[in-house]
Amino acid sequence: MCRLPKLRSARLAAIWPGTPKAMEAIIHRLPASSPDDLSAFHAAVKWGAIRPECLVAVIGKTEGNGCVNDFSRGLATMAWRQALGANAPAVALVMSGGTEGGMAPHWITVETRSDERADGPGQGSPALAVGVGRTRNLQPHEIGMDVQIDLVAAAVAEIKSKAKIDSVHFVQIKCPLLTSERIHDSHMRGFETATTDTLKSMGLSRGAAARGVAQALAEGAWSAVASTSAGVELMDHEIVVFGMSSQWTGGLMIDSAVMQDAFDIEPVRAALARLGLKSDGQLNQASRERVVALLAKAEASPDGVIRGHRHTMLTDSDISSTRHARALVAGVLGGLIGHGAIYVSGGAEYQGPPGGGPVAIIASKESKQ
Amino acid sequence: MCRLPKLRSARLAAIWPGTPKAMEAIIHRLPASSPDDLSAFHAAVKWGAIRPECLVAVIGKTEGNGCVNDFSRGLATMAWRQALGANAPAVALVMSGGTEGGMAPHWITVETRSDERADGPGQGSPALAVGVGRTRNLQPHEIGMDVQIDLVAAAVAEIKSKAKIDSVHFVQIKCPLLTSERIHDSHMRGFETATTDTLKSMGLSRGAAARGVAQALAEGAWSAVASTSAGVELMDHEIVVFGMSSQWTGGLMIDSAVMQDAFDIEPVRAALARLGLKSDGQLNQASRERVVALLAKAEASPDGVIRGHRHTMLTDSDISSTRHARALVAGVLGGLIGHGAIYVSGGAEYQGPPGGGPVAIIASKESKQ
Amino acid sequence: MCRLPKLRSARLAAIWPGTPKAMEAIIHRLPASSPDDLSAFHAAVKWGAIRPECLVAVIGKTEGNGCVNDFSRGLATMAWRQALGANAPAVALVMSGGTEGGMAPHWITVETRSDERADGPGQGSPALAVGVGRTRNLQPHEIGMDVQIDLVAAAVAEIKSKAKIDSVHFVQIKCPLLTSERIHDSHMRGFETATTDTLKSMGLSRGAAARGVAQALAEGAWSAVASTSAGVELMDHEIVVFGMSSQWTGGLMIDSAVMQDAFDIEPVRAALARLGLKSDGQLNQASRERVVALLAKAEASPDGVIRGHRHTMLTDSDISSTRHARALVAGVLGGLIGHGAIYVSGGAEYQGPPGGGPVAIIASKESKQ
Amino acid sequence: MCRLPKLRSARLAAIWPGTPKAMEAIIHRLPASSPDDLSAFHAAVKWGAIRPECLVAVIGKTEGNGCVNDFSRGLATMAWRQALGANAPAVALVMSGGTEGGMAPHWITVETRSDERADGPGQGSPALAVGVGRTRNLQPHEIGMDVQIDLVAAAVAEIKSKAKIDSVHFVQIKCPLLTSERIHDSHMRGFETATTDTLKSMGLSRGAAARGVAQALAEGAWSAVASTSAGVELMDHEIVVFGMSSQWTGGLMIDSAVMQDAFDIEPVRAALARLGLKSDGQLNQASRERVVALLAKAEASPDGVIRGHRHTMLTDSDISSTRHARALVAGVLGGLIGHGAIYVSGGAEYQGPPGGGPVAIIASKESKQ
Repeated sequence: MCRLPKLRSARLAAIWPGTPKAMEAIIHRLPASSPDDLSAFHAAVKWGAIRPECLVAVIGKTEGNGCVNDFSRGLATMAWRQALGANAPAVALVMSGGTEGGMAPHWITVETRSDERADGPGQGSPALAVGVGRTRNLQPHEIGMDVQIDLVAAAVAEIKSKAKIDSVHFVQIKCPLLTSERIHDSHMRGFETATTDTLKSMGLSRGAAARGVAQALAEGAWSAVASTSAGVELMDHEIVVFGMSSQWTGGLMIDSAVMQDAFDIEPVRAALARLGLKSDGQLNQASRERVVALLAKAEASPDGVIRGHRHTMLTDSDISSTRHARALVAGVLGGLIGHGAIYVSGGAEYQGPPGGGPVAIIASKESKQ
Repeated sequence: MCRLPKLRSARLAAIWPGTPKAMEAIIHRLPASSPDDLSAFHAAVKWGAIRPECLVAVIGKTEGNGCVNDFSRGLATMAWRQALGANAPAVALVMSGGTEGGMAPHWITVETRSDERADGPGQGSPALAVGVGRTRNLQPHEIGMDVQIDLVAAAVAEIKSKAKIDSVHFVQIKCPLLTSERIHDSHMRGFETATTDTLKSMGLSRGAAARGVAQALAEGAWSAVASTSAGVELMDHEIVVFGMSSQWTGGLMIDSAVMQDAFDIEPVRAALARLGLKSDGQLNQASRERVVALLAKAEASPDGVIRGHRHTMLTDSDISSTRHARALVAGVLGGLIGHGAIYVSGGAEYQGPPGGGPVAIIASKESKQ
Repeated sequence: MCRLPKLRSARLAAIWPGTPKAMEAIIHRLPASSPDDLSAFHAAVKWGAIRPECLVAVIGKTEGNGCVNDFSRGLATMAWRQALGANAPAVALVMSGGTEGGMAPHWITVETRSDERADGPGQGSPALAVGVGRTRNLQPHEIGMDVQIDLVAAAVAEIKSKAKIDSVHFVQIKCPLLTSERIHDSHMRGFETATTDTLKSMGLSRGAAARGVAQALAEGAWSAVASTSAGVELMDHEIVVFGMSSQWTGGLMIDSAVMQDAFDIEPVRAALARLGLKSDGQLNQASRERVVALLAKAEASPDGVIRGHRHTMLTDSDISSTRHARALVAGVLGGLIGHGAIYVSGGAEYQGPPGGGPVAIIASKESKQ
Repeated sequence: MCRLPKLRSARLAAIWPGTPKAMEAIIHRLPASSPDDLSAFHAAVKWGAIRPECLVAVIGKTEGNGCVNDFSRGLATMAWRQALGANAPAVALVMSGGTEGGMAPHWITVETRSDERADGPGQGSPALAVGVGRTRNLQPHEIGMDVQIDLVAAAVAEIKSKAKIDSVHFVQIKCPLLTSERIHDSHMRGFETATTDTLKSMGLSRGAAARGVAQALAEGAWSAVASTSAGVELMDHEIVVFGMSSQWTGGLMIDSAVMQDAFDIEPVRAALARLGLKSDGQLNQASRERVVALLAKAEASPDGVIRGHRHTMLTDSDISSTRHARALVAGVLGGLIGHGAIYVSGGAEYQGPPGGGPVAIIASKESKQ
């Protein structure tokens, strides 16, 4: 058995299959030469490295602008759906546009498999654990409201529990947004929406989803592990929870950090160190190869200042501040890791402190030989 | 006496004033809240920190796009000319547009003063030394040709010699470009220009100027210390040479490095270490305050790849690759230094290897107390 | 005597100088090869076509992005101030950035002179009349509020009356905006500002100023003749009122129209016809030469639709909708007039209906021979 | 029988099926709410207005930037391929990105059907005729060379002849381009390519294809009817020829014009008049409804000037000149027609004179009632 069944809060009972054997999470990072280039995926399937029926999520960094008219996400999603065929409905497809600066477009495939060698928690425990789930559909007038926070909080708590995750390090959520039609329909039925500005609804939804994570994990004003993005294609939430679990096995582990501002690398260095990856300066070649994926959120500090120095991200009418922020943080983190095949996503409402953001690193326990 | 007279190759004789006293270079980094905001400069003059009559150069990082229609440079230049008044002609004004990502717009003022406390090389020697000069005007058909290389080479060699610089660490050059009128005039007089594409002439001129530096300093195929930018407002070259000299005195020193690619921080860490600035991870607060200025060149690696990973800087038709490259390298270097008040300039033909670029750091010898 | 003294509402008494002779308004449209290129102005002064001491306004179309970081406006303003010298304080400098599509950067100089040939209304009456004035400074918390509407209304009414304008056809207003500092200061003194979003304050201020015009001219919900733009450099309003007056003389006239949407040329054709400029199709060469200036406002229709067809101006995150709208309307109007040396400005709150905007045409009464 | 078989020059013999009955071309213009929105197409199929098995081409105007990283084209193509299923290989899919200014994203579906009511040329003759074909694949080193011109010329001539087109009014061609891989492969096999710059190869290929059209139709230095665009997805040419034929029947007709510059509407007005569409000013409602499709090419005039006035399209480093040019010409033509659901495509090498471009109008013979 590959996949934990997706959890939908509306039908909570008895869905965890008993896990007769320890589960294992398997992550691959694959290059993309264009938003619809899945050649590396097809090759990995052919070589047996990836088993498509075990996929629970694909997290993609595509090369659009990451804003409203970013069609690289839609193109990537359509290409993946086509490639996954019958497996597609079971796979969370999370596409984040924007590879500004030195970022490399890439796919992070997430599989869960039962470890066929063991009846319980494996030798490699604790290990990376992944849980996937969805909430019920929101009504348009619920977007950005307390009910959204509560729904996400309940779902995250449940996924964490069912997937037996001990400590959560990254929660990737795709959340809904308001369109003109949805607003109109809502008004016709007598409901007020949180905003009538569709762009603003993206931020409100991202924020509410992140606050749901914070609530589920008892974090406080903002979440240190949430990474949320709004998409037009769903009305519920697609949630992928990454953490460590003593009930899981395998060769991967995860840790996380919070950057207080865009230049704040020391917490990330500390997380790397906890994973056994020393970085006086940049990671050396051996350590670098152990980093399977780095996922981070970035935003322009809202007060226009970083560490006392003015930045111009918010007053540049030619380049969106989210594009600037991704380029910047990808430079800062890429300088630490040593390359640009990292996932930095923009728009960090309640995801880390203002101007900062969460960072997660998935690494192999030992270097490849 | 403040300024070494500007050297113009055409009139070489007897211009060094004999330096009865050791010279001292004084650098200030001042914030700018807009391209015409000189309030920090006026304050520094008022407090006596800057003596306008001693200025030989102002290097500005302004917040335009750094491309053809960047009017922040022109606005800054006009504001400085107005502020400097009678001193303006003696001051090289080098404005570089583009503060993408986390860069902070700022001015670097360069003064040279005779050390009034000493008759010869001061106690602080060796110290930062600065020489300034110009070449003769080029004819349009000379731009981008061997004659430009030779003229720059001769001028740099002469400035280095006259300013008694032992080791050169950064050469900032403003060089001419072709306009439609200049091309037309040239053709009318029977001369071929190196190109008829005005944008391309900027690259050719930058490249030739950089090769002139490489020739003067016997460097090879490219220069490890050149930083050149083309501007429409001159037909000669405005050259500022930074280096170390045992004949100069004062509290500042300079060192430099070459990044082989955009993530190549180790040579910069080594240069920082040579300046006594340790950086396991990021510079600590005390070290950071000793960095007076960081100057670097950046470009998108022309083969579309950094360390084996594809980048998208060259295929993004919405953001110029020079803007991406500045954001990236400012992130990488800002992560090392700890803030964004650094000067990263785009367009690095023959300035460092393809995809890489020179970096210079000016630091105080001791921490402020 | 050249200039009517500027009217400031705070000191209303007895400022009209009696006009012993009929006044004449003189308009020149001059090309600009860059935002600081005043060579055409200097030439016109040299030839005696323009008398700098008679200038009351310069309206410029400069080639920036027309958004927050448009430094072409500041550069143009600084260049004009320098060129005007002692005359500068008396001249309203209104710079509008953005020459998207086929627009040509240009200056519209506005002079008022007493007609030395006549003691009263001249033979050419009625003729183009121009009045200029300012309001008192606003407090930050007054921006966007009813008090701003009332102040502008009073000033426009007074300027109209003092300048003896019979029918108003265009009112160009530069109005203030909120900065972070102004908001902060206001809060410290216990006042709420209309918004804490500086960008939004520009729209609120433009809208209030336009509503002031509508109130002064008893127009209704929006103004058919207002053209307002917000600038950081003033806290009062700089107002230029164009109209027709039987008390003025000279060879120029003005008429205006309101486009209901971006493709609505018929009202403009009607206005041209009233000026004696026939345009079945495009203006012919003789008619085209009689058009001295065309001034218009443009905006993307807020519902995302023009005449039933979707537009994408509001969902393009790479190009601001104001840039799209200027390019579009300049194409529509340029196709009618026959060239791109026209002034189309973006951001049309309460200036024409949603998605539409006012258009004014200044034309000579007879063709040049 | 719906489709004329596609003509591939390599197998020329006996492909015209004898046309026992007169052919009819049917065109629909359908709105698109996003690049993958085919709901209007599905509705038209459901209502019987479109017969998918009769489609020979879909020409789409999608809302990307029309430049290298325009993924709206790929998304549209993938969506159409999916929707067309087995019919897809027979349908030329030509997607042109960029709906700047007031353009509305839309699809133009092209069907050819045998007129089931007639055995020969129908009552409605002459009528719109459409022929479709392909050339053989090019070798990379043939792109932009004379052999490409000759191949296109032969194919256009043959399509025109086989489809019995009397007068050609628009030739839409998708042509290949060079990629880094293709250049590399070519060099490995000992061939020089026309350029090593992939972007430049697009212009060379577009130019060669347009010159092929000019050669086929004996036009001269440039073509008055060619509209070519380069795409990475093919190595041959996909060609759609529109014209008038006395052998075809149906209710549609086509005429064309050449704009000498971006404001040159008079030739278009003349073409409209020839189609019976009077436009003193803008087309009236009845005439407007008879316009089924308007297709045009646009480019920034390469000398930086339109009718003596400077434009800034070529010096704006924030917006590509092709985007400016589309916005401008769509404004000019939309002002004439009365709306923005028109197809204006950028990049007009050898398609009309420098700075100008071809325009074709497909109109119904009678107004709908």
